Amino acid sequence: MQRTTIGVFDSGFGGLTVLRALLPLIPDAHYIYLGDTARLPYGAKSQATIARYAVESARFLAARGADLLVIACNTATALALPEITAAAPIPVIGVVQPGAQAAAQALTLLSEPLALGPEPYVLVLATAATVASHAYRSACAELGLHATEKACPLLVPLVEEGWIDHPVTRDVLRIYLTEALATCNPQAIILGCTHYPLLASEIADTLRNLHSTALIIDSAHATAQAVAAALNMTSQPTSTTATFECFATDSVEKFQRLGNLFLHQPLIDVQLLDLGG
Amino acid sequence: MQRTTIGVFDSGFGGLTVLRALLPLIPDAHYIYLGDTARLPYGAKSQATIARYAVESARFLAARGADLLVIACNTATALALPEITAAAPIPVIGVVQPGAQAAAQALTLLSEPLALGPEPYVLVLATAATVASHAYRSACAELGLHATEKACPLLVPLVEEGWIDHPVTRDVLRIYLTEALATCNPQAIILGCTHYPLLASEIADTLRNLHSTALIIDSAHATAQAVAAALNMTSQPTSTTATFECFATDSVEKFQRLGNLFLHQPLIDVQLLDLGG
Repeated sequence: MQRTTIGVFDSGFGGLTVLRALLPLIPDAHYIYLGDTARLPYGAKSQATIARYAVESARFLAARGADLLVIACNTATALALPEITAAAPIPVIGVVQPGAQAAAQALTLLSEPLALGPEPYVLVLATAATVASHAYRSACAELGLHATEKACPLLVPLVEEGWIDHPVTRDVLRIYLTEALATCNPQAIILGCTHYPLLASEIADTLRNLHSTALIIDSAHATAQAVAAALNMTSQPTSTTATFECFATDSVEKFQRLGNLFLHQPLIDVQLLDLGG
Repeated sequence: MQRTTIGVFDSGFGGLTVLRALLPLIPDAHYIYLGDTARLPYGAKSQATIARYAVESARFLAARGADLLVIACNTATALALPEITAAAPIPVIGVVQPGAQAAAQALTLLSEPLALGPEPYVLVLATAATVASHAYRSACAELGLHATEKACPLLVPLVEEGWIDHPVTRDVLRIYLTEALATCNPQAIILGCTHYPLLASEIADTLRNLHSTALIIDSAHATAQAVAAALNMTSQPTSTTATFECFATDSVEKFQRLGNLFLHQPLIDVQLLDLGG
């Protein structure tokens, strides 16, 4: 049987956390990762420009042989999923809807649903651009969840500086989460940026210190599960090792350095790709 | 006499600190500021792409009537000043050479030059891209100064978050400056990023706590003085109030909000400009 080829697209490195979540679920696939690093961050750009960039990348991955495309970028999903889906000749899965769905499922599985009160409440941590789009609030509302979105603009630079288990990062998390918890009392917290899973353990510690018992929902894991479901991965994965191609539109050196941090394995063969400017 | 028109270009908002330094020195000019916010940050992009973007912006400002162009962006100056100078039909002044020159002048003006030791030593704080270009090290070497360059990638996000007089920012400065001072004992510290003047007072406090007596050299002020010198501003400025035009290639709202922080006066009439993308 031919291997499934899964295309994974992000504006940069964060989508590697989605790739990392995919590997144990679908270990016998061929993966093509594209980080549009020359044009990141997408956050400051207009919706039309983001859609154009993302569609170019989606077409590249489909032409390269992808059977299914994962938009492992919250901003591109929040602002351009309809355009990408319309342009790509293959199935497309974004990160926002699986994240909201996973929160809804987790809350219904709680042993004491009455403890939720009348309004299941979710806090979404994300970049300023994703928050401004209110894509998570809409996706949560469709599932009957009330969502408050909190922009955490310093978390991506802190992760990219490598300050994961670091007192400054813990201070910043304490400040952001204290501000957010002053306005709501969530039962679940969605990590709405692909960089944030690297801070999951620090976020959990901070929540404990702030006496919150909210569940942490990782959109990257939720998306990987949605991909496995879409591919009907009902059988046990075989022991076959996944194979990779990796493309970046700029800064291959930085990609390899951060790739290790995000993917927990070296990215030795990153190819430079020119998609225009 | 016709007013001088000064074009000021930056990839974003930081160049507003150069504009702020220009106003008291040359208050009777007309200023055209262009922030290429749709394509920032330049740091992750290739030299050819940065040169193309900066040349497009320089041509726009010249066509708009600028008599002189200030490249108020360390990355664009470090990576593309020759291309901009060749393409622009007007005089061009960047931020790197004036910063190095000001450090050299300050060190020769010290009352006890012998205290400098045999090797005048300068520490340059800048973004990762500016450090990687070694533009400051080269400019300092031409003036007989030894320079160590320290990348401080978290400072721009902290300033843009508005965390100026903030304990987290003081912690980050303490960490960066402790690391830098472990490798050198500078007599002067150049603020090699246009965001950093907003942190000048916090940087001075941190240096005092670390028992450093290094002078702080602000490239923005040094550049403004170079512009005044180029325009032969030998007479006292008149009391005429400066006039402004302000263009941003994206996110006019963010520009107005941060403009207040950087310029210390509101930017009420920012125009959206499409330079392609």
